[in-house]
Amino acid sequence: MAGNSFGKLFRVHTFGESHGEALGGIIDGCLPGIELDFEAIDMQLQRRRPGQSSISTPRTEGDQVEFFSGLLEGVTTGTPIAFAIRNNNSKSTDYESLKDVFRPSHADFTYQSKYGIRDHRGGGRSSARETVSRVVAGAIAEQILSKHGIQITAFVSQVGPVKMPFIDNRPHRAEVDKNIVRCPNEASATEMIAYIEKMKTEGDSAGGIITVIADGIPAGIGEPVFDKLHADLGKAMLSINAVKGFEIGSGFGSVTMKGSEHNDSFYKDQDGNIQTRTNHSGGIQGGISNGANIYFNIAFKPVASILQEQQTINGEGEPAIIKIEGRHDPCVVPRAVPIAEAMTALVLIDHLLRANAIKSTITG
Amino acid sequence: MAGNSFGKLFRVHTFGESHGEALGGIIDGCLPGIELDFEAIDMQLQRRRPGQSSISTPRTEGDQVEFFSGLLEGVTTGTPIAFAIRNNNSKSTDYESLKDVFRPSHADFTYQSKYGIRDHRGGGRSSARETVSRVVAGAIAEQILSKHGIQITAFVSQVGPVKMPFIDNRPHRAEVDKNIVRCPNEASATEMIAYIEKMKTEGDSAGGIITVIADGIPAGIGEPVFDKLHADLGKAMLSINAVKGFEIGSGFGSVTMKGSEHNDSFYKDQDGNIQTRTNHSGGIQGGISNGANIYFNIAFKPVASILQEQQTINGEGEPAIIKIEGRHDPCVVPRAVPIAEAMTALVLIDHLLRANAIKSTITG
Amino acid sequence: MAGNSFGKLFRVHTFGESHGEALGGIIDGCLPGIELDFEAIDMQLQRRRPGQSSISTPRTEGDQVEFFSGLLEGVTTGTPIAFAIRNNNSKSTDYESLKDVFRPSHADFTYQSKYGIRDHRGGGRSSARETVSRVVAGAIAEQILSKHGIQITAFVSQVGPVKMPFIDNRPHRAEVDKNIVRCPNEASATEMIAYIEKMKTEGDSAGGIITVIADGIPAGIGEPVFDKLHADLGKAMLSINAVKGFEIGSGFGSVTMKGSEHNDSFYKDQDGNIQTRTNHSGGIQGGISNGANIYFNIAFKPVASILQEQQTINGEGEPAIIKIEGRHDPCVVPRAVPIAEAMTALVLIDHLLRANAIKSTITG
Amino acid sequence: MAGNSFGKLFRVHTFGESHGEALGGIIDGCLPGIELDFEAIDMQLQRRRPGQSSISTPRTEGDQVEFFSGLLEGVTTGTPIAFAIRNNNSKSTDYESLKDVFRPSHADFTYQSKYGIRDHRGGGRSSARETVSRVVAGAIAEQILSKHGIQITAFVSQVGPVKMPFIDNRPHRAEVDKNIVRCPNEASATEMIAYIEKMKTEGDSAGGIITVIADGIPAGIGEPVFDKLHADLGKAMLSINAVKGFEIGSGFGSVTMKGSEHNDSFYKDQDGNIQTRTNHSGGIQGGISNGANIYFNIAFKPVASILQEQQTINGEGEPAIIKIEGRHDPCVVPRAVPIAEAMTALVLIDHLLRANAIKSTITG
Repeated sequence: MAGNSFGKLFRVHTFGESHGEALGGIIDGCLPGIELDFEAIDMQLQRRRPGQSSISTPRTEGDQVEFFSGLLEGVTTGTPIAFAIRNNNSKSTDYESLKDVFRPSHADFTYQSKYGIRDHRGGGRSSARETVSRVVAGAIAEQILSKHGIQITAFVSQVGPVKMPFIDNRPHRAEVDKNIVRCPNEASATEMIAYIEKMKTEGDSAGGIITVIADGIPAGIGEPVFDKLHADLGKAMLSINAVKGFEIGSGFGSVTMKGSEHNDSFYKDQDGNIQTRTNHSGGIQGGISNGANIYFNIAFKPVASILQEQQTINGEGEPAIIKIEGRHDPCVVPRAVPIAEAMTALVLIDHLLRANAIKSTITG
Repeated sequence: MAGNSFGKLFRVHTFGESHGEALGGIIDGCLPGIELDFEAIDMQLQRRRPGQSSISTPRTEGDQVEFFSGLLEGVTTGTPIAFAIRNNNSKSTDYESLKDVFRPSHADFTYQSKYGIRDHRGGGRSSARETVSRVVAGAIAEQILSKHGIQITAFVSQVGPVKMPFIDNRPHRAEVDKNIVRCPNEASATEMIAYIEKMKTEGDSAGGIITVIADGIPAGIGEPVFDKLHADLGKAMLSINAVKGFEIGSGFGSVTMKGSEHNDSFYKDQDGNIQTRTNHSGGIQGGISNGANIYFNIAFKPVASILQEQQTINGEGEPAIIKIEGRHDPCVVPRAVPIAEAMTALVLIDHLLRANAIKSTITG
Repeated sequence: MAGNSFGKLFRVHTFGESHGEALGGIIDGCLPGIELDFEAIDMQLQRRRPGQSSISTPRTEGDQVEFFSGLLEGVTTGTPIAFAIRNNNSKSTDYESLKDVFRPSHADFTYQSKYGIRDHRGGGRSSARETVSRVVAGAIAEQILSKHGIQITAFVSQVGPVKMPFIDNRPHRAEVDKNIVRCPNEASATEMIAYIEKMKTEGDSAGGIITVIADGIPAGIGEPVFDKLHADLGKAMLSINAVKGFEIGSGFGSVTMKGSEHNDSFYKDQDGNIQTRTNHSGGIQGGISNGANIYFNIAFKPVASILQEQQTINGEGEPAIIKIEGRHDPCVVPRAVPIAEAMTALVLIDHLLRANAIKSTITG
Repeated sequence: MAGNSFGKLFRVHTFGESHGEALGGIIDGCLPGIELDFEAIDMQLQRRRPGQSSISTPRTEGDQVEFFSGLLEGVTTGTPIAFAIRNNNSKSTDYESLKDVFRPSHADFTYQSKYGIRDHRGGGRSSARETVSRVVAGAIAEQILSKHGIQITAFVSQVGPVKMPFIDNRPHRAEVDKNIVRCPNEASATEMIAYIEKMKTEGDSAGGIITVIADGIPAGIGEPVFDKLHADLGKAMLSINAVKGFEIGSGFGSVTMKGSEHNDSFYKDQDGNIQTRTNHSGGIQGGISNGANIYFNIAFKPVASILQEQQTINGEGEPAIIKIEGRHDPCVVPRAVPIAEAMTALVLIDHLLRANAIKSTITG
């Protein structure tokens, strides 16, 4: 209810502030009997980690996951899997100067309004560091999904004004990771990196778009009406820090299309599978998967922590000038790739379980 | 769990198929002591109703709401408010020909995949007629919100390629209803209507964008992490039929902005209220309202039911040609305005209650 | 949240007041493809119905169920099943005299305290008439359970001081219905009826115990920790009007036993099934079913509506004498038998689905 | 969904196995601005701790709570409070011999049936050690409740056949803790201790009853129909290991009473408060508090881990003899007192918040 849980059957509860003791979470409803691949979890944490390249913050977070429960010799038992990642490298002093001012376009003012108290150290609960817990949970969900043939890849398709050409097949993650901006088109990647470097030099920041493509999802996953599969995906993505927009399939581009152009015709392929000739639906019709690739875009605003002087007010409402020091990304989008994958995985595993509960109980 | 409920404290459960006996719902968690304005409910139903203008379907739905419970002489008692709207004018025969084919970009195929059975008459549960229940619940939520000073207006800001100029203040609904396309800019409205008429003549359909603006929301409404206020708004909007995208505040436009342009500076106004000079945040920061106007856009794809011949397959997977007869909107967006308002109201009332539960229990 | 919903995967939402327009509910999450047996539903409503015998109230409730949705030619489609039962025979005038007084041991005072308003006509939402919706939903759940080999029988095992001998095998419902008090032991039944007749003559009322036995439940249904199967059964039973206690298996009797007496030894039977030699556990160990019969007792207090004069206060807190007229059961327990069965069915179907979601998704 | 969460607005999620790395939980929805009394939390953990007296197990659990989040200098911030208690003293070797047998009346067999895998070390998730997390969460809830004037005391009212006389006023905890069996009646306490010593000598175990009394609860807390306050209390208590029964107010004793004896008459006391002359209702009518003391009984079966040889089967279903070594309580009831208090606190704080959400939002 307080907003720190996600999912219905495969549930994740997260906790932690950027400069508190630890962040982490509980996965409740994980399938038993899964031998966890801890390296795969670490890999996704590495991809999210600050300090991984010249275009990300030099701040390093030592993201060592400790597991507390739910495992017997590395195998899931079906009971809650709790984990924590300690905050080792937290320089709270960086934030002392911000204790009494509200940073523009951060959550300082709104948290203060809501709770009457806030952990000002690095944004506290509102810090993007919170997503570390999502990445752990998502990496576990992915291991189960992949046993069901479901694979997810996210990649950067736009940074500032630089946009890569449209693709509709899922690239491998290795392809995505070939460059530091995580764009599978090398030419676009080069331009994106140049743009981010320019922002960094100016003490400014850039926004961007992440595209997610998932394949292997069988037809019939999702729910009608309020819990449509793309509505849950949308909520999941909009819950990521700095996300301002979400579009599934043809998205905002569909607005200028005619119905006769937009409709996806059905046909049966050589293997006898029902397919659509186009996929403007993005793999979901009426809220339920149709077996085609699910793809969607997520818009990220430029990072609010810029290194220029900004006008704001302090806790008393008096005008103040702030200059955020600390270590911040000029563009958060490349590091958000594993976060988008994690949230996609959490939505898909949850809906897979919801669909299976019904399917497996039908009699005769 | 099965996707037909919305909200946590102000909950709405809906039911019904387009050609079943009735549609309706239960509102659970409504505040007691509210004298309901039944005319206001009817007004919103009227605005959603098919057949209201030359650019909407001539199909008429006699949307008479019957209330079963939760009221004593028109005043809410705090117990569940159940209501139903009967399907009087349902011509199921229109749909007999569609019994064995999957209409392109409808939910026929996905429902069949999920349930192994489907109500083919007019789309059944997947029909947009389902939204009639949302409008009733939303109209009740609005009455409570307005007692708290919160007002919502949705309007059509784009149809096909025709886009009205940006506005950031909430127009009155009367202004929106001055033309049949529900666009508060008369010049744009005229162009939009012409475009829809053209689509109608071609037996084709148009997409569009609805903008929603809500004002009067106090700072401090919303939850951190997964249940961010705009994430819940996004899910609510994406759950509406034909919606393909959602963006809050600067939205996808933020991608090409720099942080220094995008950040909203705080200042104290003459009345001593904390405000921001710009509102790229769309009234929400870190998932929690900051007191500014909340505004967002919703992208609708062109209606899938077009009056041209289309290629598809039948239940056996064999190629088939269908020509949808029936009565369908060439552009659904004007009629979706009250639906967007309803879903906005349901999100806001729910989060208002969630915030108040905490605020009112804090001691000392 | 407001307390009118039950279950997680097989969810029931109910509505209605004893003297409002109608009572009813929505079943969300019902399996598709079930051909409903409407007679079986009516049968359970008949068994709950007032006026069915000389020991129940002569008030008759015309409990005709109308279904609104979720069915196609009598077969469930997987979408919400909404239903309503109209209040035809409601004599609200009987209750005018009670408008301003708080009936002892009713919910008049507590509803007024909670909501600041109450529907005084016959108890409103707090009336036991509310259980009619549970019986409909439970009767549908039973039809699915029986396809999985799960059967439930409730019966009256005590009325006032009259207690029938212990049995641990499930009697058939026909056996239970052989007498009007619904006790499968004829000798005890005769005594029970005599006791109730005596109470009726005195204008007084009697309490009693209902025992429920369910068989055919496979091992492995239920959840650990908070949602233990017997905890959910307990909550379900305690939510029925007038219930004051719940005990599973050996229950309160276990308190005076020694561990060496109480422990249920495992053995393998001739068919190779694992069984226990005794069943003090009542078929549930650690919150999860072990394959043995599930049985439990439910204590009902004597009906609060007695026909004697009683001291109370009115809305202003002044002393008042009330004499409840109306038509009331001297002992509600025989009519509560189908209600107990219904709530048992709702718990079991929900936990069956929860267990199957996991079981069916396990890979390798 | 998987059963490891409790509450709706004040939510607790727990994790951990008796011999895993750690146990703990997350409290989500805690009020901000509460300066935590860590000693009070420790005190309740001390009272739950094994090895505290001659009649409890000599096994000692070093229950040091570590807090990870949700606190700023010891004050709650409104964000999730995560905590863990490490398992230091776990002698898994004690349990090696039990790896392949199912202990009678434990959850070994049912967990194996449900998950196909189980953590056999000390019962894993099914161990009563799990309740340590409940005690921490409950102790925090109590601190908030006490600011609202709500106090809870649990005590042992029966052990085996030894029953203390009925009391209906809440004793102080200091009074309860005057003896090691936690019974506020000294004479009964002496007999109870003697009985437990006898069981211990015999290598056997005893059951018992805990009575809980809470006062200071305002009228109007609780929900109608399914989430009645006593139904949620019942579920909470039945979720505690070894609990077989629950009764509120007059409970099973009400069965033999007449309505005219049982009804609680209202009157206005000298201070103008509405009271009842008797309190058979146990402070709850129609599921909602009436302002009187809430009291209820909880039946505990005798501990299943006895030190005698027992017949059972192994994983292959073959007959086996087991003799549980380890260190076990001959009677768990005295140590369950703080657990019962914790669960009571969790139910009351949750319903207080639910009631306040509505009350505080009512307008005019």
